[in-house]
Amino acid sequence: MRELIVDLGDRSYPIYIGEGLLKGASSYLLKHGISKKSPLLIITDAQVASIHLQPFEAELQAAGFRTASAVVPNGESSKSLSMLESLVTKALEAGLDRKSAIVALGGGVVGDLAGFVAASYMRGIKFVQVPTTILAHDSSVGGKVAVNHPNAKNIIGAFHQPELVLYDLQTLQTLPPREVKAGLSEVVKHGLIWDERFVDWCEEHADKLLALDPDSLGYALFKGCSVKAEVVSRDERENGLRATLNLGHTIGHALEAVAGYNELLHGEAISIGMIGSAKLGLRYGASDEVYEVTKRVLAKCGLPVRLPEHFDTDVVMEAMMHDKKFMEGTMVFIVPTAIGKVEIKPDVPVQWVREIVDELKREGDQQ
Amino acid sequence: MRELIVDLGDRSYPIYIGEGLLKGASSYLLKHGISKKSPLLIITDAQVASIHLQPFEAELQAAGFRTASAVVPNGESSKSLSMLESLVTKALEAGLDRKSAIVALGGGVVGDLAGFVAASYMRGIKFVQVPTTILAHDSSVGGKVAVNHPNAKNIIGAFHQPELVLYDLQTLQTLPPREVKAGLSEVVKHGLIWDERFVDWCEEHADKLLALDPDSLGYALFKGCSVKAEVVSRDERENGLRATLNLGHTIGHALEAVAGYNELLHGEAISIGMIGSAKLGLRYGASDEVYEVTKRVLAKCGLPVRLPEHFDTDVVMEAMMHDKKFMEGTMVFIVPTAIGKVEIKPDVPVQWVREIVDELKREGDQQ
Repeated sequence: MRELIVDLGDRSYPIYIGEGLLKGASSYLLKHGISKKSPLLIITDAQVASIHLQPFEAELQAAGFRTASAVVPNGESSKSLSMLESLVTKALEAGLDRKSAIVALGGGVVGDLAGFVAASYMRGIKFVQVPTTILAHDSSVGGKVAVNHPNAKNIIGAFHQPELVLYDLQTLQTLPPREVKAGLSEVVKHGLIWDERFVDWCEEHADKLLALDPDSLGYALFKGCSVKAEVVSRDERENGLRATLNLGHTIGHALEAVAGYNELLHGEAISIGMIGSAKLGLRYGASDEVYEVTKRVLAKCGLPVRLPEHFDTDVVMEAMMHDKKFMEGTMVFIVPTAIGKVEIKPDVPVQWVREIVDELKREGDQQ
Repeated sequence: MRELIVDLGDRSYPIYIGEGLLKGASSYLLKHGISKKSPLLIITDAQVASIHLQPFEAELQAAGFRTASAVVPNGESSKSLSMLESLVTKALEAGLDRKSAIVALGGGVVGDLAGFVAASYMRGIKFVQVPTTILAHDSSVGGKVAVNHPNAKNIIGAFHQPELVLYDLQTLQTLPPREVKAGLSEVVKHGLIWDERFVDWCEEHADKLLALDPDSLGYALFKGCSVKAEVVSRDERENGLRATLNLGHTIGHALEAVAGYNELLHGEAISIGMIGSAKLGLRYGASDEVYEVTKRVLAKCGLPVRLPEHFDTDVVMEAMMHDKKFMEGTMVFIVPTAIGKVEIKPDVPVQWVREIVDELKREGDQQ
């Protein structure tokens, strides 16, 4: 079992990573101040519920917790204000009070949604994260929670830190292969922005990670969470450094906004976005190696590095203009300068970005 | 011009109270870090917009601010998630970014709604309060912002402090008499929980307040804001002391939830609620004088002290059970023990509350 602390002063919290942690979930909750006197609401999605909800809820109830649960449809469309309203209805019916907690059992969508319910219900109650995907290692650190608006992703949200994160590696064993790959995208990102040796490690262990080797997976999640925790503890409210975590996300979010249903998972879109960022790095004078390594490690993790040709560059650019990193009329990008190092470029020419989106559709043709 | 600081560490902010402040609004905004580079969104209601929006917006634009405005229907029903979504659409269309601010021009409804937009848009942007009612002196201190859920008032919200509050007494001159009275309810409440001399002052100056005498009004708002600022700065997140500000609100909110459209304004419901709390005080051994003074000062301010008989006690009790101050199975009430002093009673028998709701319908019959 690995443990790390996200250091945020009086909002600090632990992340536990290990096999079979859900079997002892109640003791972790009790250790971190979750009260049995007030009901809990477990929020999960249909896919996770079918495997994990019953045993998880039974374990908590056996320990004396009063629990209610809400199962939302799989996928990003559940991150809506109308779903927030339904979940608040559920919380009211279950009698959640100010000392209650919301438990997110699932991946990033469930974490973001349940986290925003916890952040806004009665102006903020406790929140516990139980991630069941690799991708969720990212959203389980740092307290960013949100729902989507029809015109913009994650635009309505809050910073709301959990009391604890309980990462049971066994829940990852049932992940579909495509989600495993997509999850590794943010793991690699944490290496690319902060830790050259971890990038090398990812490249060397990509096969084991794809095969869900528990020890490799545990280490990768621990390292990914550690990098993110380090960044977030230095800049909780994203005044500077934290923005580096958005590597690949400006293009990635635009691609997600434009893509058809299920065409691009978040991690896949971010992978293509990181290739775009590496290309931007070349224009700012980074060595070819930075671009080559970025591409190689993502490809080894089974991630896409090329944008399907049918994406219309104009439409992608339009979607990007809605992105919240478009600040005061200039485009802000996170750009790699070396492996494990990035810089915030506050005034990237829009024309460069447009050219790179075009290039991404030809990626691999001429190299 | 009066000025006070709400002391909340690095979230401290000033409240300016005076005549004609809106004419110089832009200089106050600039002084407190609101940037001209990013667009502002002014949120107001139809009634306030018809009088104040055009000159206010013109003043800001003349100073070089880029502004957009959104006018919501008058009244509590605008505090909804669907209105939040519309306002976020507006914010996106107007190009608001992370350095933008939301300006609330209006009363408590506009402040709560606009404040929650500011709290959640891009996970929190700057917020400026320009209250145009007496009641809003209350909501302009302390950062409580929220929208309603169909089953519960203010249940979806946040703590989000403004950058500054600009209180122009001239905007109060056009208030309908009923709103003037209702607004005084929270002013009197601030005396009742904290400052016996201010309660006496309110009783003596009730006539001047009802006649909108600027000097009396300025002093009353300054005192009301000061008490609230003092309480909030000692307990921003409502772990204890801040709950005393809920004097009269447990019954009051239930009455509002049950009342028909426009039957009870918030201040009127709270007035009846405070009489209920004073009656509860009697049961806990407070002197008759506490109850008598409470009733006298509220009546002198033209506020109702009796619950209309058609209110069904069962329905009122049911509404109260949904209130968020109903914690861990016990009923929590704020109870006056002397004039200017209250205590938090965490375990009030539900039966007592029921009897008091009944008594409130006969209030005045036997005294």
